[in-house]
Amino acid sequence: MMQSDDPVKDVFNIRKLEISDKDKGFIELLRQLTVCDSVSDEKFKERFQEIEKYGDDHRICVIEDVRSGKIVATGSVFIEKKFVRNCGKAGHIEDVVVDSSTRGMQLGKRIVEYLAHHAHSMGCYKVILDCTQENTPFYEKCGFKKKEIQMVKYFV
Amino acid sequence: MMQSDDPVKDVFNIRKLEISDKDKGFIELLRQLTVCDSVSDEKFKERFQEIEKYGDDHRICVIEDVRSGKIVATGSVFIEKKFVRNCGKAGHIEDVVVDSSTRGMQLGKRIVEYLAHHAHSMGCYKVILDCTQENTPFYEKCGFKKKEIQMVKYFV
Repeated sequence: MMQSDDPVKDVFNIRKLEISDKDKGFIELLRQLTVCDSVSDEKFKERFQEIEKYGDDHRICVIEDVRSGKIVATGSVFIEKKFVRNCGKAGHIEDVVVDSSTRGMQLGKRIVEYLAHHAHSMGCYKVILDCTQENTPFYEKCGFKKKEIQMVKYFV
Repeated sequence: MMQSDDPVKDVFNIRKLEISDKDKGFIELLRQLTVCDSVSDEKFKERFQEIEKYGDDHRICVIEDVRSGKIVATGSVFIEKKFVRNCGKAGHIEDVVVDSSTRGMQLGKRIVEYLAHHAHSMGCYKVILDCTQENTPFYEKCGFKKKEIQMVKYFV
């Protein structure tokens, strides 16, 4: 691998989710975000392939610590096709999380920038996300502005 | 058509978007929500088919006034496949609008209930949406609760 001028970038490699990432701590990382039970290899593969079918319309990215081979950050974006905005597209960022041991190294910012760039490259007129009040300063640093209220209805 | 006990339900028929709805005022209705230029028949058809490809994972519903043949309400939901929540799914409601001439007849509530029901039937553990502060009482009546802050980055 070519070394860049930035040693952090050499250590933390950002890329698309791969099926082998299940064995690199991907599920354990998601558990730092929300409820995420153990997933069987079969179930993981099935869901991976379901998402894969959407091609560039659903991108999950990860950052791997190349020293440890562990996934230390992730986030996803999917592209919604609309009729409004002259048949425009909107990117939806979901499930961004950085491992607690690697916070403060701008990995979250790299994830969000990667996902926003992907949405832009797919022709989206905007990219949106929902976050807690405490996380709004972080997303403001990533170029986002507060807009509306997220509302939820749980079925379980 | 069998008449129900509810004359409003007989007049306002809720169903999936059909390609012929372009000629029934669907685009003009969306214009009451946000920027929505005139769309050529070809472009409409192309986008319709792109969304159709997602099958039940992207549902756009409309309410037609059977007296006038006009589309008077619409909304969409798409199903996001996740790894969190034991490979769960989340429904995202978008682009809900009711024609200004038919407000106060619970058509918005019928749209939201239809979309939430669709998400539930698809196995979603939750359904989410973003709305203005002023619209939160309406969604509370539909069984939603305020949760987070929506943030946005525009590319155009």
